[in-house]
Amino acid sequence: MNRSEINVFCPATIANISCGFDVLGVALDSVGDGMVVRKRAEKGITIVKLEGQKLPMETALNVAGVAGLALLEKSDYEGGFDIEINKKIKAGSGIGSSAASASGAVWAMNELLERPFTKLELVEFAMEGERLASGVAHADNVAPAIFGSFTLVRSYAPLDIVPIPSPSELYATVIHPQIEVKTSDSRKILKTNITLKEGIKQWGNLGGLVAGLFTQDYALIGRSLEDHIVEPIRSILIPGFDQVKSGAMHAGALGCGISGSGPSIFAFSKGQDTANKVAASMKKVYRNIGIEYDVHVSKINSQGVREMRT
Amino acid sequence: MNRSEINVFCPATIANISCGFDVLGVALDSVGDGMVVRKRAEKGITIVKLEGQKLPMETALNVAGVAGLALLEKSDYEGGFDIEINKKIKAGSGIGSSAASASGAVWAMNELLERPFTKLELVEFAMEGERLASGVAHADNVAPAIFGSFTLVRSYAPLDIVPIPSPSELYATVIHPQIEVKTSDSRKILKTNITLKEGIKQWGNLGGLVAGLFTQDYALIGRSLEDHIVEPIRSILIPGFDQVKSGAMHAGALGCGISGSGPSIFAFSKGQDTANKVAASMKKVYRNIGIEYDVHVSKINSQGVREMRT
Repeated sequence: MNRSEINVFCPATIANISCGFDVLGVALDSVGDGMVVRKRAEKGITIVKLEGQKLPMETALNVAGVAGLALLEKSDYEGGFDIEINKKIKAGSGIGSSAASASGAVWAMNELLERPFTKLELVEFAMEGERLASGVAHADNVAPAIFGSFTLVRSYAPLDIVPIPSPSELYATVIHPQIEVKTSDSRKILKTNITLKEGIKQWGNLGGLVAGLFTQDYALIGRSLEDHIVEPIRSILIPGFDQVKSGAMHAGALGCGISGSGPSIFAFSKGQDTANKVAASMKKVYRNIGIEYDVHVSKINSQGVREMRT
Repeated sequence: MNRSEINVFCPATIANISCGFDVLGVALDSVGDGMVVRKRAEKGITIVKLEGQKLPMETALNVAGVAGLALLEKSDYEGGFDIEINKKIKAGSGIGSSAASASGAVWAMNELLERPFTKLELVEFAMEGERLASGVAHADNVAPAIFGSFTLVRSYAPLDIVPIPSPSELYATVIHPQIEVKTSDSRKILKTNITLKEGIKQWGNLGGLVAGLFTQDYALIGRSLEDHIVEPIRSILIPGFDQVKSGAMHAGALGCGISGSGPSIFAFSKGQDTANKVAASMKKVYRNIGIEYDVHVSKINSQGVREMRT
């Protein structure tokens, strides 16, 4: 079945999941962009439509364009692609806006070309979009966007992505307070050194989290969602963080932390009801402080980017 | 069936498994001590026989005695126990000699009392034996000795032990070069601080290792068995370490590192044949250097301390 057009859902993702700083990410199921990718005879990639956000449409300045070009370079395909993007994830929100576009584009192209590339290769192409967006070709958002569920970036040289399953009743609540946290600031603020003791705690927790995800042990997942290294520092840049976190835990969340480098805050819960209660508690904090916000409640997305049948 | 005597196998254990420094341990199947525990009317614990090693027999100075007393203190049992120990694991070898005695004693007593205590409680009692042996009540050897297979010590306060399964064809090879490495030296030599970058690598690898153990992915286990933090420093105290490791890897091992705080060196392999080849390569190194050694090849022990039917 040789198709010339595909309509895909490009999921938002949470990276830097507490103890999984810089390695662990997860894909969301009901938060994401829409994208249509169309084959054409002429070589190259054109962003023919970009709705929802003000972002560059020039191919070399657009993350979907750059990721797509990385794929085309390794492909035998003689033609090119037109891309329409319906951007719903806000840039700079901390839930993988650029990763959604980069991953969606390369996944869609791979489908239209009848899957010449592995998922790992698609991640490598999508990382070029991340390089454009942030200066660093990181994989912790594009990997879950392409593989689905949770993923661990075990190593970059060589790139080693470990897919990790998600318990069936795991839900994420994400609140995006409409403040600007410059990525450069949230990087600068990090310490270069940590104590060995802090490190041991962190890898103990990460081991517990991975084991909890494999065994569907929600209590263990909750106990392991700790971060004594990055969260205490970065949370200073997010007004209301401590209240949001304590409110979420009080409402029954398993754990709560900073999504990506912020300012979005995520919480995981067992079941949609609890996730909704967590959302209500989070909203209340920013209503009281007087900061605008978006809130999302989503099941974990087990497949990543997917085709939307229209 | 109210028994008055039990004969148990007390397994050797490997702690500080590469990226799992201070949190990950594993139990061995064919390396360990023998122990007979017998109920008696009189309160207290007596080490009535101790063969194989020169170790204190006074209850308060013997790890099995001290661990047993910790159990008795929490028990309704009005009587006491006599213990016979056949010590085969050399003290100071780095494969959990004290942990084997402490774990075996409390496990055996719990059986004779018809299991009033959970495995987690048994670990807590056995940790008192470790406190006597090394000054620190660490759990990374006693936890796998009692739970079997791999265990992760996620946290000490409260104590949180996470059991992790072992792939069916995983074998360990351990070589014990007969040199003395003082635990105090191997502790002093550690750095107090590490870089955040090193930390990220380490928890990425630990996540990969735990995932590999759950999915029986031997290649992933192998790729994850890295330690850039402790091994480069502590290995300086073990003559021949680099040759042993490169020889083991050349012979087909999945990974190789320091067992506990040394001087024993462990390697994991898929299948017994490879584990035997690894053993041969390790022996060769110490034969050439002229250091006496013991070598063990063992399947991973999935149940921990167990009854030996005589």
